Amino acid sequence: MTTIQDILSPYISLNQDEWNTFTSKLVRTEYKAKTTLVEAGTISKKIYFIETGLLRAFHLKNGKEISTYFAADNQFISAFASFLTQTPSFESLETVEDSITHSISKNALQELAIQNPKIETLNRILAENNFLCMLDRTLDLQSKTAKEKYLDFIEKNSPKIVQRMPLIYIASFLGIAPESLSRIRKEISIS
Amino acid sequence: MTTIQDILSPYISLNQDEWNTFTSKLVRTEYKAKTTLVEAGTISKKIYFIETGLLRAFHLKNGKEISTYFAADNQFISAFASFLTQTPSFESLETVEDSITHSISKNALQELAIQNPKIETLNRILAENNFLCMLDRTLDLQSKTAKEKYLDFIEKNSPKIVQRMPLIYIASFLGIAPESLSRIRKEISIS
Repeated sequence: MTTIQDILSPYISLNQDEWNTFTSKLVRTEYKAKTTLVEAGTISKKIYFIETGLLRAFHLKNGKEISTYFAADNQFISAFASFLTQTPSFESLETVEDSITHSISKNALQELAIQNPKIETLNRILAENNFLCMLDRTLDLQSKTAKEKYLDFIEKNSPKIVQRMPLIYIASFLGIAPESLSRIRKEISIS
Repeated sequence: MTTIQDILSPYISLNQDEWNTFTSKLVRTEYKAKTTLVEAGTISKKIYFIETGLLRAFHLKNGKEISTYFAADNQFISAFASFLTQTPSFESLETVEDSITHSISKNALQELAIQNPKIETLNRILAENNFLCMLDRTLDLQSKTAKEKYLDFIEKNSPKIVQRMPLIYIASFLGIAPESLSRIRKEISIS
């Protein structure tokens, strides 16, 4: 089984005592599919490390759900803007399949960062990754054709997300119609 | 005169020795208007603290310049994605008016952060601010009317940016036609 240590070790190197302190602040939770972790309009106080599962962030635009972030095993997810500013979230987080997460609260993360500079480094990396993810999606939406966007999506996302995230969510993430995405998928599987 | 200490003190609190170490890494440069600080396609190695001046970040989309970030006295500017990843920048940075900046290199900032956790905190805050700025612009572009976007722009930006940034740059930043922005400005000044 993958541990939190495995998930985080590319980013920070903690000794065993530091890991114990960090993991003592984590809360493991099992969620059924289609459970809301953060509801738009509420303040998000946690970051979630995913042991196993499939989750997404989405918001409403003209009454339609736009997915903006997908995550699966060994990744993070958060309503990051709300988490940072502690103001109501414009987006919701939900499980797409049954999921197990380890969450840490903003307060716990702040306290740990004061005690241990390596946790502040983790906080920096979380912010940088969120920035780069959003920029990547924004630029792709602006400049690529539907097919390029989907090929890029396959390359950048884990096979679990590509294979199991419902087509309608991926289509809204890429800013293309579900029928177009369906056609592109058929073209790719044939060629 | 505003000092770098004034600009940064809302974010980090350093003692005099720490300030001296930090400022010893800064390079003060005077630029004429319309000077390129970072050219798209090159790797950006610096963050710029602005003593005085007016600058913008922009990129090309279908052959047109799209401004994505404005900064003036006592603010920061960077080609942040390139700075973080050390890959070629999709965007350029340039001075709009004569400007004086204090730049710090990525290497210097990394070395300082290893020596002093407070600098790591500054790095985290820079990443968080870049994330929030980009999100803010992205959501505004999606959900607001042209007039709402401009009123919001006035509220969020310094008077210097609002008054002196050329209309064509602001229009591309807001994703509206220059003629529409011109009309909105007249409406606002009359009402």
